[in-house]
Amino acid sequence: MNTFPKGFKSCSINAGIKDHTLDFTILFSDVRASAAAMFTKNQFCGAPIVIGKESVADGYLQAIAVNSKNANVATGNKGLEDARKVTEAVAQELAIHSNDVLPSSTGIIGVPLPVEKILTAIPGLKNQLKEDGLEESAKAIMTTDTYPKFRTRQVGSITISAMAKGSGMIEPNMATMLSYILTDAAIEPPLLQKMLKRAVDVSFNSVSVDGDTSTSDTVVIMANGLAGDVDLVEFESVLTNLCIDLAKEIARDGEGATKLVEVQVTGADDDVIAKKIGKSIINSPLVKTAIFGEDPNWGRIMSTIGNSTDKVNTEAVSVSFADVYVFKNGAPTEDKRAELEEYLKNNEVLIRISLGDGPGTSTVWGCDLSYDYVKINGEYTT
Amino acid sequence: MNTFPKGFKSCSINAGIKDHTLDFTILFSDVRASAAAMFTKNQFCGAPIVIGKESVADGYLQAIAVNSKNANVATGNKGLEDARKVTEAVAQELAIHSNDVLPSSTGIIGVPLPVEKILTAIPGLKNQLKEDGLEESAKAIMTTDTYPKFRTRQVGSITISAMAKGSGMIEPNMATMLSYILTDAAIEPPLLQKMLKRAVDVSFNSVSVDGDTSTSDTVVIMANGLAGDVDLVEFESVLTNLCIDLAKEIARDGEGATKLVEVQVTGADDDVIAKKIGKSIINSPLVKTAIFGEDPNWGRIMSTIGNSTDKVNTEAVSVSFADVYVFKNGAPTEDKRAELEEYLKNNEVLIRISLGDGPGTSTVWGCDLSYDYVKINGEYTT
Repeated sequence: MNTFPKGFKSCSINAGIKDHTLDFTILFSDVRASAAAMFTKNQFCGAPIVIGKESVADGYLQAIAVNSKNANVATGNKGLEDARKVTEAVAQELAIHSNDVLPSSTGIIGVPLPVEKILTAIPGLKNQLKEDGLEESAKAIMTTDTYPKFRTRQVGSITISAMAKGSGMIEPNMATMLSYILTDAAIEPPLLQKMLKRAVDVSFNSVSVDGDTSTSDTVVIMANGLAGDVDLVEFESVLTNLCIDLAKEIARDGEGATKLVEVQVTGADDDVIAKKIGKSIINSPLVKTAIFGEDPNWGRIMSTIGNSTDKVNTEAVSVSFADVYVFKNGAPTEDKRAELEEYLKNNEVLIRISLGDGPGTSTVWGCDLSYDYVKINGEYTT
Repeated sequence: MNTFPKGFKSCSINAGIKDHTLDFTILFSDVRASAAAMFTKNQFCGAPIVIGKESVADGYLQAIAVNSKNANVATGNKGLEDARKVTEAVAQELAIHSNDVLPSSTGIIGVPLPVEKILTAIPGLKNQLKEDGLEESAKAIMTTDTYPKFRTRQVGSITISAMAKGSGMIEPNMATMLSYILTDAAIEPPLLQKMLKRAVDVSFNSVSVDGDTSTSDTVVIMANGLAGDVDLVEFESVLTNLCIDLAKEIARDGEGATKLVEVQVTGADDDVIAKKIGKSIINSPLVKTAIFGEDPNWGRIMSTIGNSTDKVNTEAVSVSFADVYVFKNGAPTEDKRAELEEYLKNNEVLIRISLGDGPGTSTVWGCDLSYDYVKINGEYTT
């Protein structure tokens, strides 16, 4: 049984948005909490993103209201009105300011939100709020995820609980990634925002669900202070590892995924180029299908590197799968096909790329591309 | 029976590079011909690319030697030596300068070229050269293509014959695209290069096999002048349409493809942004799988547009499948699901995107993403 952060309650229900599974959840703090958030930069961002940015702008929130099964994206002005109605209904039910409620939606794009169903479901939810419901909330925010993603960590007497959903891994620019982090530590909003950004950059923004490009991506942290002060260095370290854990779970549970893939890039001119190359490899359908097929077709990695930047010194490039080197200092090693085929049977695949002696490094995570990915995405709405 | 350009001969054989299918072909002109070429910009370009650039630098070629089944890419210095050996052996057999021979290779990356097999096969090929062998050459350059791509056009008394191979459509940066164009028109090298570039930009560089990013992409034109002068305007127009025909065939025959997809973007700030958005849609695995599944999940197109540029005025965007509008001036139309499902049963899908009233336009071609794509690419080397 997890310990949850003090003063947080939640409830999860089925509002009948698409089917009979959990599709609506409220995360509530007994007191207004310091809050920070990062949102997608997609030009067609969801209506809830627009309102969420307004809500968190003053650095405080008291509740998060999330529906799955419908993203309320590309729904025009009605989408915005619908998101406001939900936000206001939740605020009224919880007797708080609507500006302290952050709405989130995930699911299909371009279909009007069945707002009446949600508005009908909200009255009475306050009485359903409970202190041990966070794992249920992690279920309620799922779309094509195959399991809920939830973690709790302690920092002294402080508790941090975090949930996330992901899936749709084949390209960063299409997946939706949500994460809500609750803690009873006392941390001022500006500092909370700085720590969240640093943690997200090396975690959620380093899986091939990319926080800066999908239509609904949202990461929110609420710190209500009910457990008092915390060692900030220790807190940020635990927060970062918590986010990395969840990010890897998102990759592992990518649509149709059978393998978790980690790419470590070192020796780049800078971290930006290292991350660009890592992302290109983790997102290359030809690399992903080869890994799914356990096919030692490592040449596709060379081609992806060659496409990622015009700044690579091919003479200095080395590539290995864990410790199996297939390419060293610009030339292929003696045929490692047999060893590589053996290694590729693992359900976690590590690809190491050394570009030379530059200071730039990056680690990114993704998954393979399977028949099930095609099946899931060819039949998503039907 | 096609008429072929005057003074060109070819022969195609199996050199046993991988299996027993045709894997080596020579295209030969009786006289040195004006020549122009465009090559990949991939940093890990194939060894033949390096040598081909040297050969065509003076604006003249007399032969093109192509092997399939092995790309001779990421093969280090030995790869370069192997490519030179093949080039010199072909030159010697044909009694021409090795600097007038352009080599090309396509196939698996990172596996040393079985050069001895090719060198053994070359002696005696001169006697096998024939005037009606070009369609056979189009077969010899195939890799995962399911059919040869060959076209011949007349411009008055001038003949243009062109062959191409493609496949591996899911991302521009991984596919290999080759095209060889032969004509008996008399055109000076500098002008030939200009016309080739303009034709390639709106054809081969507008399918999701992208001339500027794969490891072996090559388009070569030889004009031997044996049929004399030509109306240059008419010639360029025919050349361009010929290239567009072949480019669409490459898209239609993408690995595992069941549908040809055309995306027309209009109203962009400029052609560059229009092409960027078109390419993003044609390359989005989520859009491609939806089209394969005949799933009217058009919202994925909106998300892709929103990711492609930060310069889109979402209020002005309209999207239609042929004439079925799903999104008009920033808002979804009434549900067109039924109409759209019906339309998606076609084996050619046209997506029209209007971004507003800007002057930028672009048309790009691609294909859907099927189970067979995963199968083909999960088992490529095995």
